Amino acid sequence: MRLSELSERGGASVATVKYYLREGLLPPGTPVTARQSEYGEEHVRRLRLVRALLTVGGMTIQQARDVLAVADDPAFGRHERIGIAQYMLGPQISPPDPADPERALWDEVFAEMRGLLTEMGWQVYDEAPALAALTRAVLTLRTLGYRGGADHIRRYADVMHPIAAEEYTVIEECPVLEEAMEAAVAYTVLYEPILLALRRLAHEDVSARLHRIPPPQETPLSSP
Amino acid sequence: MRLSELSERGGASVATVKYYLREGLLPPGTPVTARQSEYGEEHVRRLRLVRALLTVGGMTIQQARDVLAVADDPAFGRHERIGIAQYMLGPQISPPDPADPERALWDEVFAEMRGLLTEMGWQVYDEAPALAALTRAVLTLRTLGYRGGADHIRRYADVMHPIAAEEYTVIEECPVLEEAMEAAVAYTVLYEPILLALRRLAHEDVSARLHRIPPPQETPLSSP
Repeated sequence: MRLSELSERGGASVATVKYYLREGLLPPGTPVTARQSEYGEEHVRRLRLVRALLTVGGMTIQQARDVLAVADDPAFGRHERIGIAQYMLGPQISPPDPADPERALWDEVFAEMRGLLTEMGWQVYDEAPALAALTRAVLTLRTLGYRGGADHIRRYADVMHPIAAEEYTVIEECPVLEEAMEAAVAYTVLYEPILLALRRLAHEDVSARLHRIPPPQETPLSSP
Repeated sequence: MRLSELSERGGASVATVKYYLREGLLPPGTPVTARQSEYGEEHVRRLRLVRALLTVGGMTIQQARDVLAVADDPAFGRHERIGIAQYMLGPQISPPDPADPERALWDEVFAEMRGLLTEMGWQVYDEAPALAALTRAVLTLRTLGYRGGADHIRRYADVMHPIAAEEYTVIEECPVLEEAMEAAVAYTVLYEPILLALRRLAHEDVSARLHRIPPPQETPLSSP
């Protein structure tokens, strides 16, 4: 296919596709004339993945390059390839500097969260950005004087695991690696606001029932 | 108590407390001399609530004032008072302008999500900011060509409702209104990153098991 068709099928403008080609995020096509190249299905898949990394995932060009380098390295398996795409999604949270007075508390909370994951039998690397994000969030909660014990966190973990497992089956159903990576990024990022909005709506519903707020009246015309 | 004790107990600097007093976010104390006032427990609770609205909730001074106006208005009950604090939390998402070509799609997704909530028996107002946020997130998902049907959203709703109900019991255990409002804001905001981090960690665990990644080796010294 020509560049214009690639652009249409990958959901990116011709100018954007040319930009990705120049930046090396898309491999060059096969030249057919001095001014035209031919592109294949692998270009469509790669283009869709690049779009997901940059637009949905909010990555920089360099972060996307790093993800693609792992994807193209035969030394890595599917777990690492999909994992690097998730690891490169923000927020990237670093521990406080060792000289920072907050560091001791960080180390304590990190160890506690790490211990909780081990106790639950979750197999995650110490370097997982989400473990740093969890540590920071629990640290903030406690610094402000709110309850955030491991037992409490565990209750949330127990709820999230089955749903994450269900989500993962969708990702694993993608036979081609690039499609699986794209799905992992898209589902991770795009379902986050959905999850949070539903939690807030559920709070409203629970509160309305608890306080016996009368449901909105049907107008007589809409009654059967 | 004096201003310095109020500052300490409310977790805000003396300068910040004075600023809140000037902005009318804290009611004045009872004057004891020309230069000193006496503050009570109600000031500590109000100070903690104001801090939660501004610092945790990220509200503007004007938004915090609007929340406090509802809290202090005897016409409103506990459901509305806690609700306004949640409604004022970001993100505030507006529907596209009626002239925007995206508007028809927005209206369609909004009606579908509204219908889903009604079908599930959730009692929430059409004006709930989280309903607009849910609409926007589902719209984005679909515009990018990903699956996001009502059946799929419902699965997430079924998971979030029981945990939201549990969270609400903590809020309802606060006998004083201002404490309940503070807890609602703090728990809503501070647990969001915890929930999202646990979902990503669960993804990593699910993937590791699926791909039979060997768990990290124990060093011989740490073995029994």
